[in-house]
Amino acid sequence: MTEAVMTKDRPTTMNSVDVAALSETLSALQRQPALGAFQFRAKNVWASGGLNRSTIDGFFGAGKEETRPRPFTFAADEPPVLHGGDQGANPVEFVLHALAACMTTTMVYHAAARGIEISSVSSEREGDIDVRGFMGLADDVRKGYSQVRVKLHVESEAPPAKLAALAKMSPVYDIVSNSLPVEVAIEAH
Amino acid sequence: MTEAVMTKDRPTTMNSVDVAALSETLSALQRQPALGAFQFRAKNVWASGGLNRSTIDGFFGAGKEETRPRPFTFAADEPPVLHGGDQGANPVEFVLHALAACMTTTMVYHAAARGIEISSVSSEREGDIDVRGFMGLADDVRKGYSQVRVKLHVESEAPPAKLAALAKMSPVYDIVSNSLPVEVAIEAH
Repeated sequence: MTEAVMTKDRPTTMNSVDVAALSETLSALQRQPALGAFQFRAKNVWASGGLNRSTIDGFFGAGKEETRPRPFTFAADEPPVLHGGDQGANPVEFVLHALAACMTTTMVYHAAARGIEISSVSSEREGDIDVRGFMGLADDVRKGYSQVRVKLHVESEAPPAKLAALAKMSPVYDIVSNSLPVEVAIEAH
Repeated sequence: MTEAVMTKDRPTTMNSVDVAALSETLSALQRQPALGAFQFRAKNVWASGGLNRSTIDGFFGAGKEETRPRPFTFAADEPPVLHGGDQGANPVEFVLHALAACMTTTMVYHAAARGIEISSVSSEREGDIDVRGFMGLADDVRKGYSQVRVKLHVESEAPPAKLAALAKMSPVYDIVSNSLPVEVAIEAH
């Protein structure tokens, strides 16, 4: 899955990432740190029971508003054992997807920027959760996952410790493994 | 969007949640706490650059392995400004979807269990992120979101503070706002 397109002596593409463009982005961010400020957004509408849908479209980044060719929409639901209709993955499963996607992309991008070739990446994630926490049946049981385990299989010449360090630069790894202020406002009518 | 089906004097369905079944689940969990242990899973395969795909299917819960009628698959990608092909929402956007979905479902379920009728829910989430953290350009900038703001619009007779408290029982709210151990194993070959 890796292409290395050579221009003169330097590859412009590594791990299918345009490293020449990535390098330009890094220089631009060093010159103008304010370009680093991004804001991502999601809207969600409840359908019924455990079923709801999110729409993800525009965002702010690199100094301007951006739109997508079309919005992305995702349904979330619960499986029957959790009283849903199973019309979508459930919210905590989407966390595993976000974590998987982010650690993979982060490792691939940072490897590309360092000239480390990666031929393939596959991974598995498991999250343990005791639903008694969510149900409010046990105060000593947390509501979210108690632990998440990640296993990455990477085809690369680079040492595993190096690859793990790159994968851990992932924003979602940071969001999940560290705490983050979430401000909640409710408007009831 | 709310149905209230009455059987004798008690509704069996509230906010489209089968509260009779929910009540049975709560009783079962009190009798057999071990049934609360769930494990959710995701597999992911890198495609190229910022594009990868997750598959979500079976899980363990309520004492047994469960499968889905069909697996759920999701692509994640980056927008062009972040050097991707925009073939999917990006990983940090999926975090906002997971958070939106989870806070909505949690509020709706807990309201149902308490006899609080909810007619509609819509919400917006914004996450601020300075990509210089991810890029490794500034040690004092975190890699994930610095803050997430949630705004919920709820049609209900219940007081907003009550609804906010129910929404905050969300597992993904817990995962995002608190820290969580993530164990990472890399197998390179």
